[in-house]
Amino acid sequence: MTHSIAVDFGGTNIRAAYFPNPEPPPEKQVKIPTESQAGPEHVIERLVSAIEQVMPADREGIRVGIGSPGPLDPSTGIIFKAPNLMGWSNIPLRDKLEQRLDCPVYLGNDANVAALGEWKFGAGKGNAHVIYLTISTGIGGGVIANNQLLLGARGLAAELGHITMRPGGAICGCGVHGHIEALASGTAIARTAVERIGAGAETSLREIYESSGEVSAAAVGAAAQSGDAFAIELVTEAGTLIGHLLADLAHIFNPQVFVLGGGVSQLSDLLFEPVRTSFADHLMDPAYGEDVRILPAALGDDAGLVGAIVLANQA
Amino acid sequence: MTHSIAVDFGGTNIRAAYFPNPEPPPEKQVKIPTESQAGPEHVIERLVSAIEQVMPADREGIRVGIGSPGPLDPSTGIIFKAPNLMGWSNIPLRDKLEQRLDCPVYLGNDANVAALGEWKFGAGKGNAHVIYLTISTGIGGGVIANNQLLLGARGLAAELGHITMRPGGAICGCGVHGHIEALASGTAIARTAVERIGAGAETSLREIYESSGEVSAAAVGAAAQSGDAFAIELVTEAGTLIGHLLADLAHIFNPQVFVLGGGVSQLSDLLFEPVRTSFADHLMDPAYGEDVRILPAALGDDAGLVGAIVLANQA
Repeated sequence: MTHSIAVDFGGTNIRAAYFPNPEPPPEKQVKIPTESQAGPEHVIERLVSAIEQVMPADREGIRVGIGSPGPLDPSTGIIFKAPNLMGWSNIPLRDKLEQRLDCPVYLGNDANVAALGEWKFGAGKGNAHVIYLTISTGIGGGVIANNQLLLGARGLAAELGHITMRPGGAICGCGVHGHIEALASGTAIARTAVERIGAGAETSLREIYESSGEVSAAAVGAAAQSGDAFAIELVTEAGTLIGHLLADLAHIFNPQVFVLGGGVSQLSDLLFEPVRTSFADHLMDPAYGEDVRILPAALGDDAGLVGAIVLANQA
Repeated sequence: MTHSIAVDFGGTNIRAAYFPNPEPPPEKQVKIPTESQAGPEHVIERLVSAIEQVMPADREGIRVGIGSPGPLDPSTGIIFKAPNLMGWSNIPLRDKLEQRLDCPVYLGNDANVAALGEWKFGAGKGNAHVIYLTISTGIGGGVIANNQLLLGARGLAAELGHITMRPGGAICGCGVHGHIEALASGTAIARTAVERIGAGAETSLREIYESSGEVSAAAVGAAAQSGDAFAIELVTEAGTLIGHLLADLAHIFNPQVFVLGGGVSQLSDLLFEPVRTSFADHLMDPAYGEDVRILPAALGDDAGLVGAIVLANQA
């Protein structure tokens, strides 16, 4: 029997769902607050609780897959650290959960697990070579090469937000200058908006800026969709950078499909048009673009949850 | 029986060797001129001739692996084009050779095949995650991820010379600006030397420049090894760029070993020191550098030949 429990473990909420088959739909699911401020031991209790709430009466052969904040090592099941969770440092989450649940547990980092979801059940379905990029506060990624998730020696691979696109450019959260995350994430778009409005740019966002001193990426997106030229330019610049990154990734991986998820990707054509144009403009040879599709993620917030089914059923 | 013939098919020479076992040493080998100016049909005759010269009396179970100029598709055995060979465009080399030789033939692009050689028998031996970079006239690459050669959807993956390191910077042979190949290859080093000497830089290379109007990368390397500060600076700049690229590749692949081959890499510490320093400086987290080694290629000109054994014995 190939039934499994999939868990999307986030900084705010824990979602768990029971899947009687190795694919959606789930038979039962729950969503509970993570309560991360109470520390790792409490959060582990919350995870056990969420999983037990969806556990079927017959536990025979059940496996648990978890998409988790990281960095973490999927082969040892240890979370090295988790910037969004209080006090998590070198926590052997897999072993702790296996002891409590008495069943096999598989752990993967959240962007990788979302990539598995989009590859198996979403926008990348049916393709052996898929690159997933999630563009929201930060930029994360996952790579499926020849139907296998790229993990690297210690499970740290596919940090696609930390590729240099402007050497010496804006400083990234990781401390290195000019990574794509520092240039084209939601955070970067908001920061650039504030800088330019502060310097006198004309835009419908000025009122928000003057009342709060801040502008969110969501506000920039809404303004762009209302036709604000300043906001459109910001989104176009981000899309151009992302398209350039995808061209480099095409030279590296020669994939069939790029899937873009996360909040920023919901801007649809405002973002995807400059992405596609810039991608084509930066290819070393048109062969790298032939039959290559750049698609919005199809699963929304469910990518991580259904990706965890793939994780649970892998070994 | 797992015997094979390995072929290193280059623009100048064809090397073929018979390996009674799936590893070195060869029992018999030949090297003949490619005579590429005579066109594809003639070159195919040359390949058949080289292979037949090392063919054992008992052909039972023999397989042929060939490292070839590309781009090419290893799954179809078609060479799309080969800039260093006259008249090669969409040539089904594998099928043509299989018809002539009556045995299975496996084709791979030369940088990928050299990567297989260094991974299996050279500097990367014993590691599951190895990135190979060859730095000479151009920059080529090959990636072994989880003991598998990264090929991509059409076998075009691992063009690691065509990753952007300076957007808008020097134009690459492929037409895109700022690729690492346009900045840190032998060709790029020689071009920069000529530009700067022309602009008045002080260096022992001035005499060569003034007599011929040119300076080769080899001359820059020799001058650097003799302590010429100008030449050392050029090599250091190239090494710094390469180290930065390796940091990005560490975030993407999380490998255990980087192997640097090609003529430029023979500069040893003059190149490797700035590479290693820049690599460490550009990591998002020290975890990406832990136990990671950056090594010179160990097999020299034999990497492609012994890599073709791996190709022949793969399937």
